[in-house]
Amino acid sequence: MKRLLASFALLASASAMAADGGERPNIVLFLVDDMGWQDTSLPFYKERTRYNDLFETPNMERLASEGMMFTSAYASSVSSPSRCSLMTGSNAARHRVTNWTLERNVSTDRDDDLLAFPQWNVNGLACVPGVENTFYVTALPELLRRAGYFTIHCGKAHLGAIDTPGENPVHFGFEVNIAGHAAGGPASYLGVDNFGHDSVGNPVSKFAIPGLRDYWGQDIFLSEALTIEALRALDKADAYGQPFFLYMSHYAVHVPIDKDNRFYQKYIDRGIPEKDAAYAALVEGMDKSLGDLMDWLEETGNDRNTIIIFMSDNGGLAAETYCRDGERHTQNAPLNSGKGSAYEGGIREPMIVKWPGTVEPGSECDELVAIEDFFPTILEMAGVRRYETVQAVDGESFVPLLKGEGRGKERTLIWNFPNKWDAEGPGIGATCTIRRGDWKLIYFYKDGHKELYDIASDIGERNDLSSQQPEQVEKLSRLLGRKLRGMDAQRPAFKATGKPCPWPDEL
Amino acid sequence: MKRLLASFALLASASAMAADGGERPNIVLFLVDDMGWQDTSLPFYKERTRYNDLFETPNMERLASEGMMFTSAYASSVSSPSRCSLMTGSNAARHRVTNWTLERNVSTDRDDDLLAFPQWNVNGLACVPGVENTFYVTALPELLRRAGYFTIHCGKAHLGAIDTPGENPVHFGFEVNIAGHAAGGPASYLGVDNFGHDSVGNPVSKFAIPGLRDYWGQDIFLSEALTIEALRALDKADAYGQPFFLYMSHYAVHVPIDKDNRFYQKYIDRGIPEKDAAYAALVEGMDKSLGDLMDWLEETGNDRNTIIIFMSDNGGLAAETYCRDGERHTQNAPLNSGKGSAYEGGIREPMIVKWPGTVEPGSECDELVAIEDFFPTILEMAGVRRYETVQAVDGESFVPLLKGEGRGKERTLIWNFPNKWDAEGPGIGATCTIRRGDWKLIYFYKDGHKELYDIASDIGERNDLSSQQPEQVEKLSRLLGRKLRGMDAQRPAFKATGKPCPWPDEL
Repeated sequence: MKRLLASFALLASASAMAADGGERPNIVLFLVDDMGWQDTSLPFYKERTRYNDLFETPNMERLASEGMMFTSAYASSVSSPSRCSLMTGSNAARHRVTNWTLERNVSTDRDDDLLAFPQWNVNGLACVPGVENTFYVTALPELLRRAGYFTIHCGKAHLGAIDTPGENPVHFGFEVNIAGHAAGGPASYLGVDNFGHDSVGNPVSKFAIPGLRDYWGQDIFLSEALTIEALRALDKADAYGQPFFLYMSHYAVHVPIDKDNRFYQKYIDRGIPEKDAAYAALVEGMDKSLGDLMDWLEETGNDRNTIIIFMSDNGGLAAETYCRDGERHTQNAPLNSGKGSAYEGGIREPMIVKWPGTVEPGSECDELVAIEDFFPTILEMAGVRRYETVQAVDGESFVPLLKGEGRGKERTLIWNFPNKWDAEGPGIGATCTIRRGDWKLIYFYKDGHKELYDIASDIGERNDLSSQQPEQVEKLSRLLGRKLRGMDAQRPAFKATGKPCPWPDEL
Repeated sequence: MKRLLASFALLASASAMAADGGERPNIVLFLVDDMGWQDTSLPFYKERTRYNDLFETPNMERLASEGMMFTSAYASSVSSPSRCSLMTGSNAARHRVTNWTLERNVSTDRDDDLLAFPQWNVNGLACVPGVENTFYVTALPELLRRAGYFTIHCGKAHLGAIDTPGENPVHFGFEVNIAGHAAGGPASYLGVDNFGHDSVGNPVSKFAIPGLRDYWGQDIFLSEALTIEALRALDKADAYGQPFFLYMSHYAVHVPIDKDNRFYQKYIDRGIPEKDAAYAALVEGMDKSLGDLMDWLEETGNDRNTIIIFMSDNGGLAAETYCRDGERHTQNAPLNSGKGSAYEGGIREPMIVKWPGTVEPGSECDELVAIEDFFPTILEMAGVRRYETVQAVDGESFVPLLKGEGRGKERTLIWNFPNKWDAEGPGIGATCTIRRGDWKLIYFYKDGHKELYDIASDIGERNDLSSQQPEQVEKLSRLLGRKLRGMDAQRPAFKATGKPCPWPDEL
């Protein structure tokens, strides 16, 4: 009889969970890769720019009309740090996946003449302890899964190195993995190229897209194939009656800028030069995917209970001439520089949130939001109130901003990049950065110089105020140094002496 | 500073887990489908039988020489009840997935002239509460996954109906799913048949094998393709340095008995009739898979720390003449009947366990073991000592038996099958059954008759002792009735009156 009673008690608690379950919103986290702040017809700046006129993203406009635009949303300047923060809530200074990952125990840092770079977590995240050079975590999808969400990964994962558990997003709690693996970009967007496989099915590089065999040889663009597969997974979620978390993580708009023939010619006909036309077509294919998902949500009646979050993982690539027209480092104008840079062009992101019944349609928020804030925010949205993580969470929920309640206190953002990225350009190098209010301080590890900008009046970061505002420089340096040490951040060292570069408040 | 300390504490606990991690054994659970007790050259009976001479399973012999044979291991008489018990530790009387599952809300019970069958859990298991006609569970792989195991599903899943969460084994905590879905058998074992897909890739039936696209059109047998894919997953587990749980759940040896041309002709050349030759080849292909896995374990040095458990999910199919030669219901001789039957031919299984350093090589155990015992046993093997499940666990760990410590108390097994299976034959029908010591009582719901056998002296169940042993019948009936009610078991009803069939102790 004892066993019977125990069994009833268990069933009762299960029912209580079911009752809760019905009210939980579905969540679509739509993350675009390498998309700049200006790569859209939706103006995130106070005025329309030439790039807003170049790009056509009607579905971003549609989403913004139904939700809230965030004009001051930030990520890291390269992919892995952002994605690792997104999945963990930890700042990159803490998780130490500060440059991009790919191969096990191989750093992607470029050699430098003066600086030696630290042993950062070159293997990315791990869901289990004890994997060398990884940050051990309780990931966002794991917590959502445990709370009863059907968790779907679609597209680029890039969370851990090849041959480590983090290479496969299922290890972080995703129940479905469509085309995600260790690599951070696609070998090819083209079905006719088997998405980067040769005619006998061998990958042409480590960037060959896994899965999607059904589309090989077809005239289909990767963004479209991913969308079709994501919708299939959503059909299942709908049938199951479970709330779902779809992490729609497009490979677009990462290089190579393969031509999406559904849209390319239109831009050429408008007189756009070839590279920009191809890039705009890649952007529009991504935007169509957003529209297709929104259509599915409406057609199935799920739109009323589904949150959509739109974000990019770093600034638009502007340091290379092979993929964009125009002068280098100008493609995120009015922002300076692009991907890889500590300037706004590298870290400021287009962000939109639709939350029916909570977010006022067509609204705008200029408060600072960072990529690590998504973790506590999404868990709060999902009603996951009590949870344990093995990592420390630095992010702060922006649910109050979505509710129009304001934040009540000033948000301070920090970045740490003790590395050397692939290309050169303005603000690209080993830096740490702090943003507080309108002020932004960048500290360059290599030569110790500091730059201070008033972002409100100088979003292009052309007017360094550091010599005019020594007190502000000192104050921000102190705060930044304290935060970095508090997160056990890493820093480069000088090759000549073997000594670490000073913290920003030690100079 | 507070945050820093918190972070250190978390890291410290993570390290402790890593230290534990190194000692946990890998576990391979090798489950064969529909394999009878005699479908092997390894004798599980006290004497060799003609079937032991028909079949060639050298790798089962190899495994037995390195481990312990269980001669009195039991499962349910059809697939779904066994598999659901395996994943949950619950007896079928409790989990109520008592017949086989496939389509949502569709019972596979055959119509009966006299009996109406209960609303059993026709949708199988569910990992979330609130899914109609399912048993809500915390599944075995989920608990292993949470304990840091890399969890791999390969082959037949058959845990939940189409369009319910249970259709996909990833929902139960498997991180990798190779070819598992709702269906309990393969449309085709042949790569040249695209494993049940037509030339444009459409499934020919609900039994078409999902995935495995790389093998379509190739001259490869399903058991081989599954093994190659399982080994790929094991290579990953090895690279990750995580302990792994491989659930190698062969579709073999379920119908259709497609010819495995690697082995078929050999049996023909030995003078075996065609149907039995095809069946023996199917069995040997499964056995080769076992050998390939054992080879991989040895080659990678993982054999010293890997437990292998061999089991089948129900008795061999003997009720149909299209797939086996000889008289119906004789293919499990000396056992009576086969799949679907309450007689030994339906429920007694070949079982072997290898556990290096714990199980004595070449040993044998005649103690009673049931399919629901695997759940607590495997968790104990994995060192998962404290865990919570939403379901009640009926199984008992057989780790003491593996250690040669004996059980210390008598094990009582019960079965409940308030359903009507596909075929007819001896012991096939709505029954409940109890085994205690050498005694076995079967109660037939339809006509209320009871049969009593002394299995030790009458393994073929030819000599019904019920009229000679009325006290034993009464005692076992009482125990069985009490246990069934204690598990909130279901029973059929009489169509004529609408009244439920009596419990075995009500007659």
